[in-house]
Amino acid sequence: MKAGARSEPPRGFARAEFEARTARAQARMAESGLDALLLTTEPEVRYFSGFLTRFWESPTRPWFLLVPQNGAPTAVIPGIGAECMARTWIEDVRTWSSPTPADEGLSLLAETMRERLGPRARIGLPHGPETHLRLPLADFSALRARLPGYVFSDDAGIVRRLRMIKSPAEREKIAHVCALVSGVFEAAPAWLAPGVSEREIFRRFKIACLEAGVDDVVYLVGGAGPGGYGDIISPPGDRALRAGDVLMLDTGCTFDGYFCDFDRNFALGAPDAAAKDAYALLFEATEAGFDAARPGARAADVFHAMNRVLTAGGAAEGDVGRMGHGLGMQLTEWPSHAAWDETEIEDGMILTLEPGMTLAPGLVMVHEENIAIEADGPVCLTRRAPKEMPVIPA
Amino acid sequence: MKAGARSEPPRGFARAEFEARTARAQARMAESGLDALLLTTEPEVRYFSGFLTRFWESPTRPWFLLVPQNGAPTAVIPGIGAECMARTWIEDVRTWSSPTPADEGLSLLAETMRERLGPRARIGLPHGPETHLRLPLADFSALRARLPGYVFSDDAGIVRRLRMIKSPAEREKIAHVCALVSGVFEAAPAWLAPGVSEREIFRRFKIACLEAGVDDVVYLVGGAGPGGYGDIISPPGDRALRAGDVLMLDTGCTFDGYFCDFDRNFALGAPDAAAKDAYALLFEATEAGFDAARPGARAADVFHAMNRVLTAGGAAEGDVGRMGHGLGMQLTEWPSHAAWDETEIEDGMILTLEPGMTLAPGLVMVHEENIAIEADGPVCLTRRAPKEMPVIPA
Repeated sequence: MKAGARSEPPRGFARAEFEARTARAQARMAESGLDALLLTTEPEVRYFSGFLTRFWESPTRPWFLLVPQNGAPTAVIPGIGAECMARTWIEDVRTWSSPTPADEGLSLLAETMRERLGPRARIGLPHGPETHLRLPLADFSALRARLPGYVFSDDAGIVRRLRMIKSPAEREKIAHVCALVSGVFEAAPAWLAPGVSEREIFRRFKIACLEAGVDDVVYLVGGAGPGGYGDIISPPGDRALRAGDVLMLDTGCTFDGYFCDFDRNFALGAPDAAAKDAYALLFEATEAGFDAARPGARAADVFHAMNRVLTAGGAAEGDVGRMGHGLGMQLTEWPSHAAWDETEIEDGMILTLEPGMTLAPGLVMVHEENIAIEADGPVCLTRRAPKEMPVIPA
Repeated sequence: MKAGARSEPPRGFARAEFEARTARAQARMAESGLDALLLTTEPEVRYFSGFLTRFWESPTRPWFLLVPQNGAPTAVIPGIGAECMARTWIEDVRTWSSPTPADEGLSLLAETMRERLGPRARIGLPHGPETHLRLPLADFSALRARLPGYVFSDDAGIVRRLRMIKSPAEREKIAHVCALVSGVFEAAPAWLAPGVSEREIFRRFKIACLEAGVDDVVYLVGGAGPGGYGDIISPPGDRALRAGDVLMLDTGCTFDGYFCDFDRNFALGAPDAAAKDAYALLFEATEAGFDAARPGARAADVFHAMNRVLTAGGAAEGDVGRMGHGLGMQLTEWPSHAAWDETEIEDGMILTLEPGMTLAPGLVMVHEENIAIEADGPVCLTRRAPKEMPVIPA
């Protein structure tokens, strides 16, 4: 084992965890008058089944998981997924030969729903923020036409509510990938150097994450420029690092389907006063966000705690729209640290703290850490960024 | 430059290419009576704008591109994307501070549509196979309510039609990533060995692809087992390679946002007769598919050409549902090599040939190559798999 390597958490989840997720959803369905949830996206299907595959990259085939108010879930999926789904806890797996656009699973799904739910039922489909329906619009219309006694409504926030609170096993996976990538960031000054292009830095960073033990480097963005960067979502360019640059890398790597999402800033040679001051202010804002992220507070309180520090320090607001968010099976999840988000912070949440500011027109800086909320307060899953910006000799 | 490295194609596209894509879409909108296309997914927005970012991994914010029947497209996007979109050819970029779930761009979008299209308009949204709407269902309802004079209908297949035919610049990107990954597969026997776990093989393969020059290893699936594998979409397990195994790796790597999608099979020690025969039959079926993939043929003809070889060789059909597909900005695109797909094969298409068969219950084998269709026939973009299965000493 490499020096400093931590032992990997187990892959997958115990059957009891899926049973508990299902039971919690069912209790809420009963309260909300829903006869079943119908799920179509990767994280929704995986949350209740454990079905983990990169095959969702192919947009060709729809996948359905039906979670009824009573009894175990039923998967209605393309035949190509039968073997992989058979290794999950789901016992009732029904397949069709796909692709078959003339009837892409719709008759099988409708028949399954009638068999399990009867001729009339109220179906919850996630309708709210950060969700979508992974099904062609024409097929959604065709499905509704096949089920005249059915009402398709919102899922009453059930999926969001469940997924926001992570189990100890989920937290362990996120903590693991946070620790792996913390090590990669800490080691980066040894190979970051003037003259290396952004593209090459991205390549080396991805390789370093894989060598450290992450499963996939799903997300890597960043930027570099004199005294700061203009943009935090772009792919790399051909520009080479130069003395006076500030470089930021922001990554979402996965372990067993769970994400980290954090960044680090580096100065090429001693940073100028504006960059140094911005770094110090963002560090302080992150501390304030950390202190505010306690059970019983609201996501908006965490935002205000960070924003107060930034405003007092004279920072102009950026246009990221929030200062952090939930984290788990997706790179970003509910809630948002934003003035409008009254979601209560609870034991079991995994959150990012992501204060950002504009240094000058077209020049921004962002910090980001990942934290877990426990009953008596937050714990940092990432190893905290250095208090002063790391300086690469240049 | 590394030995054997080929020079990279230029990144991005000339402005003229986006203008031509837009003009072609507009001509078809006029024929179909559509006043505009409204696009919400990553490949749709990127096809008409050139907007390339991994930020789509975050499900939080919707992105809109409006392509009217007359005039240039308008982007209606979250503020966080303004800088990145400003570097594209799109000049009319309108932003809102996002996330703001109470009005997630909807009033800005509705206002923009009324300004550009007037009080009544017919809007084409992709509705058909392999599409979806990347927008919460509740927001789609709210948008329609804000635009009472508007009809939202299918896009008349316009986006599919355009994206199926690749430009020379698109083809060059796909050819480049196919060549890079061909080299990685050819070099793999040097490091594949008994005792190495599937998980470690996946890790090394991803690193090798990045070192070869791909931007991202978005997709890697595969399997290994005695005489064959049971499943072609699963993530790796902890099982170590053993003598007698057949290993398959199937990858979708990207260069500048364009995919390759092909696989290779390897035998650990001399393969048994069944595996050897299956490999030979699949190789022959691929040849037959290649010969059939000429302008004027139908996707169904390509399927039948491959299927005839397999049936004559006594192969049982697998449950993959087709024997190849289109390839480009997504891992899989239209058309499908399947008995039901009457799409005409045309100059400019990029396709996979992917015959598969069942060797024994629970044991499958799949071959895959990527080809470009030219006026006088197909060209292989991947370097053809060896005629006999490569054997790793075991």
